Amino acid sequence: MSHANAAASPVIDALVAAFGADEVLAGDASPRHLKDWSGVAGGVPLAILRPRNTDELSRMVAICHAHGQRVVVQGGLTGLVGGAVPGEGEVVVSLERMNRIESIDVDSGTATVQAGAVLQAVQDACRDAGALLTVDLGARGSCQIGGNVATNAGGNRVIRYGNTRESVLGLEVVLADGTVLSMMNRMAKNNAGMDLKHLFIGSEGVLGIVTRVVLRLQPLPRGTSTALVALQDYTAALRFLRHAQQSLSGQVSAFEIMWRDYLETAVEANRLRWPLAGDYPVYVLIDMHCGQPETDGQRFEAMLEQAIEAGWILDAAIAQSVADAEAFWAIRDGIAEVLRDYAPTLNFDVSVPVADIGDCAVRVRANLERDWPQLRALFFGHVGDGNLHVVVCRVPQDADSLHRIEDAVYSVVREQGGSVSAEHGIGRLKKDWLHYSRSEAEIALMRTLKTALDPQGILNPGRMI
Amino acid sequence: MSHANAAASPVIDALVAAFGADEVLAGDASPRHLKDWSGVAGGVPLAILRPRNTDELSRMVAICHAHGQRVVVQGGLTGLVGGAVPGEGEVVVSLERMNRIESIDVDSGTATVQAGAVLQAVQDACRDAGALLTVDLGARGSCQIGGNVATNAGGNRVIRYGNTRESVLGLEVVLADGTVLSMMNRMAKNNAGMDLKHLFIGSEGVLGIVTRVVLRLQPLPRGTSTALVALQDYTAALRFLRHAQQSLSGQVSAFEIMWRDYLETAVEANRLRWPLAGDYPVYVLIDMHCGQPETDGQRFEAMLEQAIEAGWILDAAIAQSVADAEAFWAIRDGIAEVLRDYAPTLNFDVSVPVADIGDCAVRVRANLERDWPQLRALFFGHVGDGNLHVVVCRVPQDADSLHRIEDAVYSVVREQGGSVSAEHGIGRLKKDWLHYSRSEAEIALMRTLKTALDPQGILNPGRMI
Repeated sequence: MSHANAAASPVIDALVAAFGADEVLAGDASPRHLKDWSGVAGGVPLAILRPRNTDELSRMVAICHAHGQRVVVQGGLTGLVGGAVPGEGEVVVSLERMNRIESIDVDSGTATVQAGAVLQAVQDACRDAGALLTVDLGARGSCQIGGNVATNAGGNRVIRYGNTRESVLGLEVVLADGTVLSMMNRMAKNNAGMDLKHLFIGSEGVLGIVTRVVLRLQPLPRGTSTALVALQDYTAALRFLRHAQQSLSGQVSAFEIMWRDYLETAVEANRLRWPLAGDYPVYVLIDMHCGQPETDGQRFEAMLEQAIEAGWILDAAIAQSVADAEAFWAIRDGIAEVLRDYAPTLNFDVSVPVADIGDCAVRVRANLERDWPQLRALFFGHVGDGNLHVVVCRVPQDADSLHRIEDAVYSVVREQGGSVSAEHGIGRLKKDWLHYSRSEAEIALMRTLKTALDPQGILNPGRMI
Repeated sequence: MSHANAAASPVIDALVAAFGADEVLAGDASPRHLKDWSGVAGGVPLAILRPRNTDELSRMVAICHAHGQRVVVQGGLTGLVGGAVPGEGEVVVSLERMNRIESIDVDSGTATVQAGAVLQAVQDACRDAGALLTVDLGARGSCQIGGNVATNAGGNRVIRYGNTRESVLGLEVVLADGTVLSMMNRMAKNNAGMDLKHLFIGSEGVLGIVTRVVLRLQPLPRGTSTALVALQDYTAALRFLRHAQQSLSGQVSAFEIMWRDYLETAVEANRLRWPLAGDYPVYVLIDMHCGQPETDGQRFEAMLEQAIEAGWILDAAIAQSVADAEAFWAIRDGIAEVLRDYAPTLNFDVSVPVADIGDCAVRVRANLERDWPQLRALFFGHVGDGNLHVVVCRVPQDADSLHRIEDAVYSVVREQGGSVSAEHGIGRLKKDWLHYSRSEAEIALMRTLKTALDPQGILNPGRMI
């Protein structure tokens, strides 16, 4: 594939002259730089820049800035909203070569890495050093720390450890004019002036390019207790959640709800065993990270027994081995096969206050059944975080139907004061729905910040706002 | 005390005309609006504004904005850096009447309050409702939620629950022109565009006035285990911290280090009992919030026994009653009496990476002993957060000595990449030292944001930057 007009472009000439053809790929581009996991169609970029360090990246951006050249930032390209897909005539900045794990300090609970380091590589290095990087999500084998930070990635462990934001102590960012902004703080407490890093976390690269990160590490858990639990309805799940959180006091490390529709479909698509003897309306996969596995396992069992005695849960299977736990998690992680079997799907990632999730699911389901009785919809999510995922299977592909199905979901979320994007961000795909979750004054302030930091609008243009 | 030139001021005329003399105190001012806990001397304000709700506050600020009138925001006036002390001719906006606890939703884990609500009142209301507001600090009886948010208050529970920032889900803010910016999110996950609330948390009111807050609540602990532990040195404390955190997996709720100098002085000043039979170089007050008190107490004891067997700790006394625990905490909380007995003191609130605190204490002590051998200095802090407090007793009051003592501490912090203000903020008192912890590029960006949001510079002028 050829780059559009690369030969005729003064900015590319300047970049090649400064960095050479290896760092500035202005000829044929690998197709992997043209798309992400969202499937959004993009355009042909002028060039792919592959800096080796912050200094190079800074100088590249300064050249783009001098030419008013638009830039799109790429990490592991696992995004689901098309934010990193290049637009026609943009220059791609790929962080792939900036993947160094610079240091791990277990005593201080910090890891310092370049933004292009792959999440799983950092997780492994931290574990080998004796500490836990709590950021974890399905894309761990491909996604990069810089992308995790830029999108404030969520995942399954948020209920205990928070979003990526809570694992970021320090950042280094290159601004639109090439300025290197170092905020490489390594302390949990630092109130010396504004904490500027938060401006960039979750801002999807529209205010600056994340180049280095100080991550906060936690003690390695010595064991995990896992159970799959059956319940009557969402109200019961909510009661069980409160009970588990109080009884295990901060150690609930995952609390994944699956309505029967999701469980059945995932078991089928992945050819798994039905996990419990009976058949129930709602299931919860719960686990706890712990420090004294023997006594902690007893506390976990006692908690479940109390819940059964109180009538909050109907049945529970406790994993007796790592294989058992993996079998339970295979149901929750089996979403990829569901998406493949029921393509094309429409995938929602919304949040509403925890107490309202049950109502949200009921109302969304009613909206869908009313207008599209033939469509199958699957419900699951991270309850403790208020995060509900809905997969609508085999959706019609005309723009009008897609928009109406989206509205059937997002209108409920809007009424409940929820978010149209709990984890995945806005990117290109959800721009039309941003105003369902953010007020005019909020969007105006986002634009004010964009203008203040990137007056030419060259960083990730047309994304988010 | 009379307000300077209030009668001659068109802005005061406009405010009184719009809101009346009860909400706009333009005559004599209560002295309590003229100072905070820092002791910084201020000036005479033009008036004290006491709005009842966001709408009133918004219209008041709009009038000030139209007149280019400088405004200082006041919460509970417990700040330690003089940020809320009025300057000559400023208008005070007091949040004291906006103290309503609007709602507490235990299932969603949220409390919605006006910014002027006193921390302890919100803590009590949440506890009565069955949930824990984790923000806690010594000033709880006077400080207000809005001030806690604006200064990102820390405290003793940060090691487990994070700073105030981590307890804020949503905010409402009035901007410099009177615009009401509602960001009243109630979910743990919301990646719909930039998370603007973080711009205001910890920004000390220079970008906007916090008017309402959605707080994140945690499950109420069912019990607490507390111990006072004796150790050889900081290296041992660090080893013990790692052991406790891994063994209790997330449940260490306080880990307060006290060097012998602090302990001895606090015991004396408060006429307390010496807490352990022997006399040791370093003490740690550790506690754990738990959910199954009986078995959890056993886990806590087992953790301590392992630490003694391993030689990491020299002695430990476990609280057998609430009275025991209170007696241990009385030592740590006895700082007020120390400050009284040894006034005038110079109080430091710095942070460095956790692994470097011991070295920081050694070097600061050496600097002080070298140049001021007669001065007593006390060391204690929140080790898990990298937060070290140093109290220098009976300091000479000439500006040169004060500056040199500050430099003796802050120069070490600067070399270690630490913060000159871990918890207390910058305000007026620490402005000169901000550049020890933040780079030129960071300070420049703080100014860019200030200009973008408050181009006239009317909000908390001259504070922080």
